[in-house]
This record gives sequence, structure tokens and C-alpha cells, in this order.
Amino acid sequence: MMTHQLTLSQVKPEMQDCIQNCLDCHSVCLNTVTYCLQKGGMHSEVDHIRLMLSCAEICQTSADFMLLGSHFHHRTCGVCAEICEQCASDCEKMGDDAQMKACAQICRQCAESCRQMSMAMA
Amino acid sequence: MMTHQLTLSQVKPEMQDCIQNCLDCHSVCLNTVTYCLQKGGMHSEVDHIRLMLSCAEICQTSADFMLLGSHFHHRTCGVCAEICEQCASDCEKMGDDAQMKACAQICRQCAESCRQMSMAMA
Amino acid sequence: MMTHQLTLSQVKPEMQDCIQNCLDCHSVCLNTVTYCLQKGGMHSEVDHIRLMLSCAEICQTSADFMLLGSHFHHRTCGVCAEICEQCASDCEKMGDDAQMKACAQICRQCAESCRQMSMAMA
Amino acid sequence: MMTHQLTLSQVKPEMQDCIQNCLDCHSVCLNTVTYCLQKGGMHSEVDHIRLMLSCAEICQTSADFMLLGSHFHHRTCGVCAEICEQCASDCEKMGDDAQMKACAQICRQCAESCRQMSMAMA
Repeated sequence: MMTHQLTLSQVKPEMQDCIQNCLDCHSVCLNTVTYCLQKGGMHSEVDHIRLMLSCAEICQTSADFMLLGSHFHHRTCGVCAEICEQCASDCEKMGDDAQMKACAQICRQCAESCRQMSMAMA
Repeated sequence: MMTHQLTLSQVKPEMQDCIQNCLDCHSVCLNTVTYCLQKGGMHSEVDHIRLMLSCAEICQTSADFMLLGSHFHHRTCGVCAEICEQCASDCEKMGDDAQMKACAQICRQCAESCRQMSMAMA
Repeated sequence: MMTHQLTLSQVKPEMQDCIQNCLDCHSVCLNTVTYCLQKGGMHSEVDHIRLMLSCAEICQTSADFMLLGSHFHHRTCGVCAEICEQCASDCEKMGDDAQMKACAQICRQCAESCRQMSMAMA
Repeated sequence: MMTHQLTLSQVKPEMQDCIQNCLDCHSVCLNTVTYCLQKGGMHSEVDHIRLMLSCAEICQTSADFMLLGSHFHHRTCGVCAEICEQCASDCEKMGDDAQMKACAQICRQCAESCRQMSMAMA
């Protein structure tokens, strides 16, 4: 099911996209935590897992602020963009792995979309 | 973006659908809270808002348990099915309103999908 | 039970205080949402409830970032301080009510503690 | 700051204790995730980290249901008791370690308090 099929009250199309990116990024990061712990080695180092857990959480918070219509969403989206960017870089360092590449990609996409959302309000 | 386009590790298709239903239900419930508070009257009564907030939260928790691969997901999905069912009934009582109908519909869909998930593990 | 009785790994005393303030503020805000919806009138207006729900969520996120040891906690604490400050002002406008006063007070305390935490890292 | 100093609306003393146990258990589990990832070995195995993350999340959800006054709290507390119990056992297997012992202890305490809360409503 796609977000634009959902009936969201007073949410503009570009914000709907940003919400969806945040929820997707939350989902992939959380799922990738499990994947990384199974791989072990550098994948399960504390800094990497911590970054992915932090990324999952701020994505959720940013999505929820937009869903509630809070005008502070530009502030949470700003922080979210920063963390997603760093999480993407970290995943890319893990090398040539389909799961890590997919995680990096959704993190970049979410970062870009949150950055625009944070500036739209400034 | 649809969930089946996401790269989720070790998540079966029916579970991916359930995750998506939970995330959609979380999103619509949270967004509908704002809508109801603006409508006022019976829409903003404490029992209704509380039920929608509870529904949004248990949907998130159930989605996260599945994304993490926790085998306790059948327990959270069981509780989620119950709460979604009651939230759907509550929304239907609000009458002939597109937003409330849409919220009731995604709640029913999520309830059905969580119920099956909870029984698949039993 | 007080936080300093908890065994938290690598968390300095001032951060433990900030975590506790965030968790207290989360708890009181969420509980006060229910109180406000029962009072009705200006207490249950959408902007006020939305602000308290947003405040509860960013407090949780900030606490979690500190508990995980994420170095991004100074960013979430910065946003948290801002939102808590505004939530405190909003609660104070509701007048001479013990619950609203208590909510305003914990919001101010959390804002102050998060502000210091956000600057300590700058 | 202790929970009984907080102004919580319509929350009985035994429920206030249960909320505090849930928040403490959430905090210690999340913090212990970081500790375990640093220790490595069996401490950072996927099943253990996943269980502690799940425990942290259901504790939060149970606390929130009680803070909102949802009558479904007996259902979330029931699931929470089960997960806390298993998390305690898992932590105890990690041996003679102050952090793991402290985590096991708060998990047992939270399990006991949630079990009573879940039965009080039955």
C-alpha cells in the first residue's frame, strides 16, 4: 500500500513523500540492525549499530511530527537529515553488500527529502 | 514507495504485508487524532482520542517487533489486532465522514492481518 | 526508584539527570493530554494537544539518544529544549490549575537541562 | 526525581510504581545494548540484542498505555511481563557481570509488577 492512497488530513504531497521516506528508512534501518548483528565483525560494532538505531528512531519521530501537523517538524527533519546522511556513509563503508547498499540508499533518499522539508519552513 | 520494494532481511511476504498494514494504521490513526481534535464534539472525546493514540502506538510496536525479527511478534500482533478492532468500531460510530471511514478501514485491515500473524505462530 | 540508583553504563551524572528530566517530562505530558481532553474547552484545542504530544515524543527520543550514547544527543536535546519551552508557556496560559502548573514546571526543568546538554557538546 | 513526586492525573499508586518500573527497565535495557555491543562475544549475539531491544520497546509501550489511562494496559502489561522475564533469564546467562546483573534485576522487578497489573484487570 502506498502512502498517497492513505487518507491523510491536511498533509501536502511533498510532505506525504517525506513521511513515507522516514517510515521506509526507519523500517530498513531497524531490519538491518538484525542483519548486521548476524554478520558480525565490523557490521556489529557498537558505533554502527548505535547509529542505525538512532537513525531509526529520529525517522520515526520526524514522521510522527509531520503526521500530527506539528510546525516543529522542520526542526526534527533537520536533525533527521543529518543523522540519515551519516548513517548512509557508515553503511557504504561496509562494502559491496546488497542489504547495506539498500540501507544506504534509503538513508540518502530520506536525508534529501528531510533536508528540503526542514528548509521549506525556514 | 511500497514495502515489497524495500530490502528487508529474512522477512516473509505475508509479514511484509503485516508490517505495512501496521505502519499505515499507525500513520492514519495519528493523523486522524489531529483531524478529530479540529472537529471537536464527540470526535474529540477523551476515550476516542485515547483509543486512537493507543492504536497508533501498538501498531508501531508490532511493526518494530516484526522488523527486528522478534519471535514475540505474535504476542504484540495479538494485542494489536484487538485494539485495532475496537478502534475501527469507534471510528465507525463517528458517522459518515471520509476521514473516519478511511481510518476505520485501515484499522480493520490491520486487525485482520495482525490476527493471522498472531495465529501463525501459535 | 531514582535514576542514580540505576546501573547505566558510561553515563555521566549530569546526563543521568537530563535523561530523568526527559522521562519525567514525557510521562507528565502524556498523562496531561488525557487530563486536558477531559477538561475540554481551550485545554483540548488541537494546537495544545498537538504540542503536548510532540513534547512527549521528542523527550522520549532525547532520552533514548542519551541512553544509547549517541553523540547526536546534543542535536535532539537542542530541539527538545525548544519544544519543552513552548509547551511550558502553553500550559501556563491554561491558568491556575495544579496539573497544568506541574506540567509547565517539568517542561521548564527539562528545557533547561536539555539546553545545557545541547551546549555541552557544541 | 521520583515518580511519586510527579503530578499524574488519575493514576493509582500501584500503577505509578509499574510505570516507573517500565521506564527504568526501558532505560537500563537500552543502555545495556550499548554495553553488550562493546563487550562483544555472546553479549552481542543477535538473539540477545534483539531481546533487549524488544524488551525496551514493550516497556515503553506499557508505560505509555498506563500514562494515557488506556484500559488495554492490562494486555500490554501481560506481554511486557513475559518478555521481561525472558530478558532477565538471558541477562543472567551472561554471567557474573554487574551491568548484566543489574539489567536482569530490573527486568524481574518490571515483570513482577506488570504481571500483577495485567491480572488486576482480568
